Amino acid sequence: MLPVEEHASHRRAAMNRFASLDSLLHPGSVAVLGASTDPTRIGGRPIAYMLSQGYQGVILPVNPNRAEVQGVRAYPSVADLPTTPDTAIVAVPAAQAVQAVDDLGARGVRSAIVFTSGFAEVDAGAALQARMMENARRHGMRLLGPNCLGLFNARIGFYPTFSSSFENGWPRPGRVGIASQSGAYGTHVFSTARNRGIGTPICVTTGNEGDVTIGDVIGWMAEDPDTDVIAAYAEGIREAESFLAALAAARAARKPVVMMKVGTSTVGAHAAQSHTASIAGDDAVTNAVLAEFGVVRARTTEEMLDIALTATRRIYPVRNTLGVITISGGAGVLISDAAEALGLPMPEMPAAAQERLRALVPFSAPRNPVDCTAQAFNDLSLVGAFTDSMLDEGGYTSIFGFFTGVGGAESMAPRLRAQLAASMARHPDRLWVLSIVATPARIAEYEADGFVVFEDPTRATVAIHAMGRFGEGFAQTPGLPPPAVPPIELPLTTPSEAAAKRLLAQAGIPAAPEAACATAEEAVAAAERFGYPVVLKILSPDIIHKSDIGGVIVGVRDAAGVRDGVASVLDRARSALPDARVEGVLVAKQLRGGVECILGITQDPVFGPVAVFGLGGIFVEVLRDVALHRCPFGVDVAERMIRSIRAAPVLLGVRGRPPADIAALAAMLSRLSVFAHQAGPRLRAVDLNPVFAMPEGEGAYAADAVIELGAGA
Amino acid sequence: MLPVEEHASHRRAAMNRFASLDSLLHPGSVAVLGASTDPTRIGGRPIAYMLSQGYQGVILPVNPNRAEVQGVRAYPSVADLPTTPDTAIVAVPAAQAVQAVDDLGARGVRSAIVFTSGFAEVDAGAALQARMMENARRHGMRLLGPNCLGLFNARIGFYPTFSSSFENGWPRPGRVGIASQSGAYGTHVFSTARNRGIGTPICVTTGNEGDVTIGDVIGWMAEDPDTDVIAAYAEGIREAESFLAALAAARAARKPVVMMKVGTSTVGAHAAQSHTASIAGDDAVTNAVLAEFGVVRARTTEEMLDIALTATRRIYPVRNTLGVITISGGAGVLISDAAEALGLPMPEMPAAAQERLRALVPFSAPRNPVDCTAQAFNDLSLVGAFTDSMLDEGGYTSIFGFFTGVGGAESMAPRLRAQLAASMARHPDRLWVLSIVATPARIAEYEADGFVVFEDPTRATVAIHAMGRFGEGFAQTPGLPPPAVPPIELPLTTPSEAAAKRLLAQAGIPAAPEAACATAEEAVAAAERFGYPVVLKILSPDIIHKSDIGGVIVGVRDAAGVRDGVASVLDRARSALPDARVEGVLVAKQLRGGVECILGITQDPVFGPVAVFGLGGIFVEVLRDVALHRCPFGVDVAERMIRSIRAAPVLLGVRGRPPADIAALAAMLSRLSVFAHQAGPRLRAVDLNPVFAMPEGEGAYAADAVIELGAGA
Repeated sequence: MLPVEEHASHRRAAMNRFASLDSLLHPGSVAVLGASTDPTRIGGRPIAYMLSQGYQGVILPVNPNRAEVQGVRAYPSVADLPTTPDTAIVAVPAAQAVQAVDDLGARGVRSAIVFTSGFAEVDAGAALQARMMENARRHGMRLLGPNCLGLFNARIGFYPTFSSSFENGWPRPGRVGIASQSGAYGTHVFSTARNRGIGTPICVTTGNEGDVTIGDVIGWMAEDPDTDVIAAYAEGIREAESFLAALAAARAARKPVVMMKVGTSTVGAHAAQSHTASIAGDDAVTNAVLAEFGVVRARTTEEMLDIALTATRRIYPVRNTLGVITISGGAGVLISDAAEALGLPMPEMPAAAQERLRALVPFSAPRNPVDCTAQAFNDLSLVGAFTDSMLDEGGYTSIFGFFTGVGGAESMAPRLRAQLAASMARHPDRLWVLSIVATPARIAEYEADGFVVFEDPTRATVAIHAMGRFGEGFAQTPGLPPPAVPPIELPLTTPSEAAAKRLLAQAGIPAAPEAACATAEEAVAAAERFGYPVVLKILSPDIIHKSDIGGVIVGVRDAAGVRDGVASVLDRARSALPDARVEGVLVAKQLRGGVECILGITQDPVFGPVAVFGLGGIFVEVLRDVALHRCPFGVDVAERMIRSIRAAPVLLGVRGRPPADIAALAAMLSRLSVFAHQAGPRLRAVDLNPVFAMPEGEGAYAADAVIELGAGA
Repeated sequence: MLPVEEHASHRRAAMNRFASLDSLLHPGSVAVLGASTDPTRIGGRPIAYMLSQGYQGVILPVNPNRAEVQGVRAYPSVADLPTTPDTAIVAVPAAQAVQAVDDLGARGVRSAIVFTSGFAEVDAGAALQARMMENARRHGMRLLGPNCLGLFNARIGFYPTFSSSFENGWPRPGRVGIASQSGAYGTHVFSTARNRGIGTPICVTTGNEGDVTIGDVIGWMAEDPDTDVIAAYAEGIREAESFLAALAAARAARKPVVMMKVGTSTVGAHAAQSHTASIAGDDAVTNAVLAEFGVVRARTTEEMLDIALTATRRIYPVRNTLGVITISGGAGVLISDAAEALGLPMPEMPAAAQERLRALVPFSAPRNPVDCTAQAFNDLSLVGAFTDSMLDEGGYTSIFGFFTGVGGAESMAPRLRAQLAASMARHPDRLWVLSIVATPARIAEYEADGFVVFEDPTRATVAIHAMGRFGEGFAQTPGLPPPAVPPIELPLTTPSEAAAKRLLAQAGIPAAPEAACATAEEAVAAAERFGYPVVLKILSPDIIHKSDIGGVIVGVRDAAGVRDGVASVLDRARSALPDARVEGVLVAKQLRGGVECILGITQDPVFGPVAVFGLGGIFVEVLRDVALHRCPFGVDVAERMIRSIRAAPVLLGVRGRPPADIAALAAMLSRLSVFAHQAGPRLRAVDLNPVFAMPEGEGAYAADAVIELGAGA
């Protein structure tokens, strides 16, 4: 138990979570514990880098054996420092690092960057890390690492990192921030960006994330006035609160977050665990969370940088449409394929405009893709006439010009640039991307004009599509509030099916009409009341998977069938599980004509209860065709989930089948999400399988319900 | 009707199809019709290029107004040429081009390259193109184009093209050939390749494909001793024979073909049609054909070049396994994800080897990905020890080293190269790919050592996987012969369901037991014979879609039900289609416990009959989860198709369901393929829907059969 005042300070820190990273990222002074005179050693590199890049603050080397390190006055210990530094680099062995953090905290240093490895990333180091973090917490310090490569903020020449990646060049000025759990991969992203001319002046690697997480870093960048675009790399999200707050902050600030999240594969997840001791939550859950906040998930590093580069133009169309102007019909086809696969609309040009353009250039194909043919290059003003028409009449939010080597040719480029730039100036709100094969110098000219330039047209199309996704994320209005569900008291142990259905009924989640019956004659009476056919199920709190023991009989059509069936299921239960408490038989109306669905709740170790929706049987089990969302949510989100599965046409009515009651299904799903949210962590899982989505207007009913609970409160 | 001798010469040409392109690609002399003194005009560029690049043959400009063009002696007409050139460039207006081709043919020129547009790519030009092609055929000439950008063969300085792409540089020497239907896109591929240092000395664009098709070009490259790798771009395959022969020739020569086939989208397919008048066959059929021949289909141009570049190493592992050595755990995870998504196995290192490596570098994670950590870089011989162990003990056919900027750093690169090269020398049969961020000069050093270098690790993984797919294609043994099916005479018109089933029964394709019954009492007798439940279906040659008029009743359980049912379906048929010839009712045993499948035949306009397999209902209609293959084929191919669908686990037995009789299903599918092949083009479609795949050993039976026929012979 923490003393009250420490608890309060911890709360303060949490409330001001992102600003508390200022001392790490923008310090006026930095101590270097383990400062080395050798500029190629871990404790020497940061000093050498900061000296070379003109760090605007004070460097305070700590070294018990030297009065001076790389020309800078050094001090024997933290206690001996002349002033309290804003932050400190810890580059001493693991055994000393724990004490070092304590010393820094005692001295009042607000944060530390711990390079040292040998902590939670190896089995033996977990306890050591816990002790170090306890020290940091006690002093209210923020701690980056341990086992991290550090960070850099090139804007103030601050380089608390031992990365060797600067040997090939320093970061360029710009407005893209990099947040990475992996150190080596973070610098790989930085190096690749630098070689492509993308400015990433800030890069933070979080290593073991003893304290500062990737979420904290994203949040800080969301609030940083000098960062426009955030590129993030993660192997697993360790805690939800700051991650979700960060994504919300970025969205509120209209700053796109493009993210690589690896560890989707079996091998990958295993490697991720051995690597930075990540708790890699289920990848599908992460996917759902990223989608919720409008984060674009990049499939490759290259794609992440393509999207980040394009995002620096800060044009994020809400309803993105693509107009393509091309000198190659082939490229037009290729781009159309890519756009359709992504779901990026390419509306046709208005008929009148097409006619006019066809009159201008006889062999042109001005439908969209607009093939102006190489002919337009005999008189380049024709290209401008085409793009003007595409902007004015086609109204496209994004224009993609495929000009390949022609756009790079000395004989063409200056005049082509002038034509396109004039067109762009008429509509500065539109996104312009070009596919050009040219020398770096010529590409730089196009970029200076405000064009984004790619060589590969498919990559360009992916980046254009991402801008629209950002725009939609930023424009998203708050969803409907989750439905009101009365507070429901959970039983002490996992309830029987009937009890589970009663609980869910309190939450407004209906089941098919059914009755718990102690005798065969009660069962017959219930069946006659509901109308045949009925389903019979064994009723026992000890038997969860009833089908597995033959405890379910469907399609019972008359009284004799009910009597036979009751005898059978009781028999089977007795022989399969002699010790189970059997309470009788559940008789339920058998629903016909509905679509079988599955609604469920699973607990994600990081994000808590997650609702799952899919169609029954093979669709979920074999094809994994499901939609997920964090709980709780409103019916609008529920309906989006339902409509997002690949097999959704089955619910919307295919081949003469009536459309299903999606409104009822959505109400059920959103109520389930609220139920799960209110139930808290004792609720391990809910499985409504099947749920019958009846034809429109006829409702949706759970035909089976399993609620799994953890140990009682 | 062609005269006999012309027909014979045409046959000869077909038999020697690819060699007949020699005069186009490797001529000793070339006439230039429409030769221009202006080296920037269409008729001037080829001459300027050939003069600049030292064409090794004779240039013969034809120009009625000049005695000399760009310093070369010119002739007023084809008839005036001093010798008969091997080939000719036609750069005259469309109206004159038809005559020009005739003149060239009369002079004995064996081929022509027609730049001229205004032919089949525009509505009005189809007839003109037909006339020109008729001239070419009559003279036994091969013709490239019309409406094409030409070709180049840099090996002999032959540049019959008006592409402006050389303004930024000439092709590099190398062994990759480019075959492209699109001119502008073909040169885009060439320019991009050149900028990446990939040698593509031969590039052929086929334009309207009046005669020479992309298949011909691939075939010529397959037989060309100086080409190792073929990169192809197509919008639609126009004819099957030469395309299939070319792919077979390439496979026989162990030359990988990597292909972009665009026009998958609605917009794209439309644009493709307007662009080069392609008959874009169904994209899924093309996909199946490419897979059949081991062609790797690239999703993007960049991916095509990645794969082509890697293929120039000529290492095509048959059972490809990937060993990853990395200095970044994060990259290891990312690469593992990519490999798993592709289906590229990454087996673990043997336990003993792991132990030994862990002893060498304590914090290393040598499972695979093998994370040697940055620590190994303090003593680079450790890296060599790791890779040696991966090759010797892990036995990986492909090694991927992720070294990012460290591999590019001056302080590391020379020693790292030496270590890796020594390792490579021990096993020259293994594929080595590195992910390194470095200057072009340093990358060239690695490449000179024999490494393939990528910056992006995901792209590298895709390329490594492709090499294994090539290897599997080359190693593929001829499949089983298609089963023997007796020749079956098709009726003159579309048969009734019962007649269709009888036809299929002759081909060995069984249906559920059934009987055509003229009266209700015959129907009852049949039902009693088969056992209940039964299915009743209206029997009429005029009613194909029986369900649509309520002509099918399932689950009939007794004699009374049969009598009622027969009356109902006859009633419904009479009121829905009063003029239909009704022959009675089909009574069929209702199969239970099987998996519903669909087997079908469709006619592809290019590749002829194609067999389709999928699961019934939603799986095919909504999820498009189907496998396709050209007819005919053996049971091995049929079984591969069945196992390749996403929902295959349903057939293999999921959740207590017994596995289906896949052998029976495969026999049925392969017999259907032979039936369709033998039936010829009058067979428009076959639809066996549903087919019940019963549990293993119990067979597979068509429950419905539709055979659609074209007009009688």
